[in-house]
Amino acid sequence: MNKKLNIGVIGLGRLGSLYAGYCANRLSGANLVAVSDVREAVAQEQAELLDVSRWYKNYQDLLDDKEVDAILVVTPTSLHKAVVIDAARAGKAIFCEKPLSLSVDECLEIKGVIEQTGAFFQMGFMRRFDSAYVAAKQKIEDGVIGKRVQYKSTSRDRNRPSLEFLKPEHSGGLFVDMGIHDFDIARWLMGEVKSVYTVAGVLAYPEMKEIGDVDNAIVNMYFENGTLGAIDLSRNAIYGYDIHAEILGTEGTLQLGYLRETPIQVMKENDISHDTVPGFYERFEKAYIDQLDNFVENVLHEREPAITANDGIAALNIALAATRSYQENKPVELYEREGGV
Amino acid sequence: MNKKLNIGVIGLGRLGSLYAGYCANRLSGANLVAVSDVREAVAQEQAELLDVSRWYKNYQDLLDDKEVDAILVVTPTSLHKAVVIDAARAGKAIFCEKPLSLSVDECLEIKGVIEQTGAFFQMGFMRRFDSAYVAAKQKIEDGVIGKRVQYKSTSRDRNRPSLEFLKPEHSGGLFVDMGIHDFDIARWLMGEVKSVYTVAGVLAYPEMKEIGDVDNAIVNMYFENGTLGAIDLSRNAIYGYDIHAEILGTEGTLQLGYLRETPIQVMKENDISHDTVPGFYERFEKAYIDQLDNFVENVLHEREPAITANDGIAALNIALAATRSYQENKPVELYEREGGV
Amino acid sequence: MNKKLNIGVIGLGRLGSLYAGYCANRLSGANLVAVSDVREAVAQEQAELLDVSRWYKNYQDLLDDKEVDAILVVTPTSLHKAVVIDAARAGKAIFCEKPLSLSVDECLEIKGVIEQTGAFFQMGFMRRFDSAYVAAKQKIEDGVIGKRVQYKSTSRDRNRPSLEFLKPEHSGGLFVDMGIHDFDIARWLMGEVKSVYTVAGVLAYPEMKEIGDVDNAIVNMYFENGTLGAIDLSRNAIYGYDIHAEILGTEGTLQLGYLRETPIQVMKENDISHDTVPGFYERFEKAYIDQLDNFVENVLHEREPAITANDGIAALNIALAATRSYQENKPVELYEREGGV
Amino acid sequence: MNKKLNIGVIGLGRLGSLYAGYCANRLSGANLVAVSDVREAVAQEQAELLDVSRWYKNYQDLLDDKEVDAILVVTPTSLHKAVVIDAARAGKAIFCEKPLSLSVDECLEIKGVIEQTGAFFQMGFMRRFDSAYVAAKQKIEDGVIGKRVQYKSTSRDRNRPSLEFLKPEHSGGLFVDMGIHDFDIARWLMGEVKSVYTVAGVLAYPEMKEIGDVDNAIVNMYFENGTLGAIDLSRNAIYGYDIHAEILGTEGTLQLGYLRETPIQVMKENDISHDTVPGFYERFEKAYIDQLDNFVENVLHEREPAITANDGIAALNIALAATRSYQENKPVELYEREGGV
Repeated sequence: MNKKLNIGVIGLGRLGSLYAGYCANRLSGANLVAVSDVREAVAQEQAELLDVSRWYKNYQDLLDDKEVDAILVVTPTSLHKAVVIDAARAGKAIFCEKPLSLSVDECLEIKGVIEQTGAFFQMGFMRRFDSAYVAAKQKIEDGVIGKRVQYKSTSRDRNRPSLEFLKPEHSGGLFVDMGIHDFDIARWLMGEVKSVYTVAGVLAYPEMKEIGDVDNAIVNMYFENGTLGAIDLSRNAIYGYDIHAEILGTEGTLQLGYLRETPIQVMKENDISHDTVPGFYERFEKAYIDQLDNFVENVLHEREPAITANDGIAALNIALAATRSYQENKPVELYEREGGV
Repeated sequence: MNKKLNIGVIGLGRLGSLYAGYCANRLSGANLVAVSDVREAVAQEQAELLDVSRWYKNYQDLLDDKEVDAILVVTPTSLHKAVVIDAARAGKAIFCEKPLSLSVDECLEIKGVIEQTGAFFQMGFMRRFDSAYVAAKQKIEDGVIGKRVQYKSTSRDRNRPSLEFLKPEHSGGLFVDMGIHDFDIARWLMGEVKSVYTVAGVLAYPEMKEIGDVDNAIVNMYFENGTLGAIDLSRNAIYGYDIHAEILGTEGTLQLGYLRETPIQVMKENDISHDTVPGFYERFEKAYIDQLDNFVENVLHEREPAITANDGIAALNIALAATRSYQENKPVELYEREGGV
Repeated sequence: MNKKLNIGVIGLGRLGSLYAGYCANRLSGANLVAVSDVREAVAQEQAELLDVSRWYKNYQDLLDDKEVDAILVVTPTSLHKAVVIDAARAGKAIFCEKPLSLSVDECLEIKGVIEQTGAFFQMGFMRRFDSAYVAAKQKIEDGVIGKRVQYKSTSRDRNRPSLEFLKPEHSGGLFVDMGIHDFDIARWLMGEVKSVYTVAGVLAYPEMKEIGDVDNAIVNMYFENGTLGAIDLSRNAIYGYDIHAEILGTEGTLQLGYLRETPIQVMKENDISHDTVPGFYERFEKAYIDQLDNFVENVLHEREPAITANDGIAALNIALAATRSYQENKPVELYEREGGV
Repeated sequence: MNKKLNIGVIGLGRLGSLYAGYCANRLSGANLVAVSDVREAVAQEQAELLDVSRWYKNYQDLLDDKEVDAILVVTPTSLHKAVVIDAARAGKAIFCEKPLSLSVDECLEIKGVIEQTGAFFQMGFMRRFDSAYVAAKQKIEDGVIGKRVQYKSTSRDRNRPSLEFLKPEHSGGLFVDMGIHDFDIARWLMGEVKSVYTVAGVLAYPEMKEIGDVDNAIVNMYFENGTLGAIDLSRNAIYGYDIHAEILGTEGTLQLGYLRETPIQVMKENDISHDTVPGFYERFEKAYIDQLDNFVENVLHEREPAITANDGIAALNIALAATRSYQENKPVELYEREGGV
């Protein structure tokens, strides 16, 4: 059997715990060898649950662990810069969950250290590994839809997370926290974004005003190649977790996404109904695993990362421009940022 | 402008009134010139509503009307024999709604007179004119599904009609009244039926026992070419009027039918729902019109009838065999009937 | 039988001919008594086809016809002003196809004469009579989706009409010709529009540049009540005629539209497929008829018009703002127009 | 952490290898501790792949292994009797893949030893653990569809397995190998079967005649409670792996199943299409895991087995009756078997 990659997971929140479980059980090329969380009890509990011998309160200790080949950074975004930079200097291969950071300056700092150290670094944008998006990318490249013309995508949560989670100083706000997936896919499938214009508001949860964020938004955009895009975001879909996208071309169109979770229809008097996908875990479990699998294979076989720090920066840049467009109620050009990437 | 066909409608029940309206307004090649119904007030009312100058209580008077080129027979089935035979002798072109009769002997008598008089005669089986069935027929002939292997079809009413209507002596019972459409399509798309076996019962409406009919049934069958079929019938779909069919082949499959009436989805908490087709009128309006249009064109251009008395007899024959199979709980061969068609 | 409304149809292009046919055959409360078209042969041909005794080359002659109670204005848009004003002065009830005019000034002139003469005037926006839109309006009013939050709608043609038809001086351009339906529904379901921002381009048909119009566009918008909207338009859907809409609320969401024309699925190796709605006639035939039926009933029973000149002006106003937003690449406020409605 | 169940897997064919992988990685309550296969190299390879220290050529050696608490029997069906009986006598908890055996006599022998030894024994019918079937069972029990009236189910493979696999002496033939899932679900959702009547034939693969089996069949049935059923089977769906079912009741209907694998629609000229579920693994992966999870939990917590030997016998009994009905072309009553279960 080939050598496996020894992985340490830093940050054991909801997603971090999932990732740790995937490393322990679902990745044929990897072993989970260590976990860390500032909440030591959480780290210990996960370690025991997953049959891992080492857990750390301090991520630095995990980085000092010689058994650890690679790390997954799943901490709060505010810690990404410190962890990624320390890991790069410690010579670990790095997978970092989106968003890379909440500011482009921090991103550039991270990118500088990655380049300087030559560390392997891969961004996490799991949608790129979902079978629908993979198929769309391939079909576009195969010419199935001719020339691309419009990109549309929708991200909707059933209802809002906690206000604590949503605070813009933690989450980055609606565009950075939620929209960044749509911006990343927009770039991946259509090309670079030239400008954005945002309409948004607090329309479902008045309490959002207290934390200074919006709960609904629509961003339209020009791509640099002249094509058009529109992304809509909502915290209050109510009916279910709804992620879908469309790429309209001159010779065909692709529609991505689905809504039904359980394959059963209930047929009552003049009413046919079905349930819905409840959340990101049910919708994207396989994409998460395939994304980590890809990271592991890229490290083991010394391939290029599938998604780079530049991708992380570019998506953040659009999200920040969309935020600013809303605040200033005007179209924002992406190149406006000095030293733009 | 070309000559139009002058049509008289005999029988102004629910379907007869629809047909009269279609003749008056929807058929470019026909005029409605007369109507008749034993309920004279009904005849008069329809005539006025449709701006027709002549109405008759007695269908014989309509047949004596020299202005009438062609008639639609939409009376209760028990009168079909008398009306069709009289019309054939009166030299009218005849369209007769299904079923041709409730007994094969009567059918043969009708057929004899049609042949003897040379009258133009066309059976009514509107499904053959529905766009889905037309497309299926064409695709089968074009080889899209390769060799045919299985035929499945379903007919379901939302709930039972009145007991008076359902009495087998009037309606012919579930297999003749409702199943005959499925048997006709089975023959049309697959070939002649060799044998049938029926399971059936009174499962939803106990009062059906009083009139001596069942409310649910499944008939499976061998076709003479060795292929297989299954038809299920229900008076209690509740959710909507559901007519669908499937033809499974060696290189593909066709599925026919649809359920949603209004093109709107209502998305509530963990529930996506839509309404349903309420009844035969909404589902098959265009097929009814196209069927009459076809009759008119065939008469005007002296073409062969699209559906013949033989088709009416063959479908009835299967329906009666299915009935007998249920009663005797054994497979029934179609050729068993002496003098079988 | 009640009195019927005697209708004259002015303009016998594609839609005008359809309307004339509906008046002749499909409206229980109306008679078609006259038609006019500048192409006299066309007028005569339609009159004969529909069994109407009077046809006119000059619409004024039709307006002078004492038998005519009401007219449908289905001429090129550039003639709407003259015909509507003359008809109002001639005391006819008026139905005018969208758009009311290509300029707001002309609209205001028309509106002035309507008010002055007291003529019955109803605008044509057939989507408001489609069963999906009717259901959506009702469900919103019933509180099914709670508070409205986002409106999205899509209009796509399979491919572009002739350049001659598309010339902005005739059609008004993409936003006036095609988008006006979406703008009207936006107002009807969400409320007045406050501002718009448009991204657009010539992306599929380079020859559109010659006539000075775009072939794809996305308009996002604030409504005056703070809710959000996005409308996307395309001349090159290729796959089919696709009209759909969505209203997202705080307690539910409504999705309107459908794509399959023939109720058959073709299932081949690893491929399930179906056809699509080809065009506006197939998609909206019933809505067109219901719209005319509503006009007839409103006139006969002296009810208020369902859709007014103000509705025509407001939708045009948004379409013109969307056009200007594209041209100037900035958000445009609707109230910016002096003397705005 | 609680004690885990130590599992040995006997038989490492396609399904056995999957099961071994699930035990190694996907069941939180179990460890895979040993595997066996008559092909020793296969056993060794799987053991190494799954990081298991013990592999056996001879299943008896695995049964002698004191570390093994429970076994999964995934051998060819012809070996089920020997393995299950030996395992029962060795005191192991037993999970046995369907069908229990190819003859009722062998089944009864197995059942006798299970009862005599008191061994824990659970049959494998994974559909009972699929979310759609679980939901259907619950909804029926909750009264959602009122009284049950009809049961319909369909099982279709894309194309036939190898003739070697299909030989009735190995597979049991179409009704035992494939239909047994439908018969089991029929019993589970509707109640005991009273009689069956089968139509069947070699319609797609002429070479099936050589091995003495059919490739297409439709079985209709009476349940003992008077309700009706129909099951259709095909080896040549071509379009995809299609498993669906329907339960029609007096107050509603349930439809189970789905066809699309990748959540993307491709929209080309007058054609909307999507791909299909390729096979049992993609369709039922989660059900397989949930089924093993259930077995593990039942053993660990000393609960009753979810599916018993009697269930295995009853489903086999129906499958054999369906086979005989085809061979003798007559309805077959289930109680006809002497000593019937």
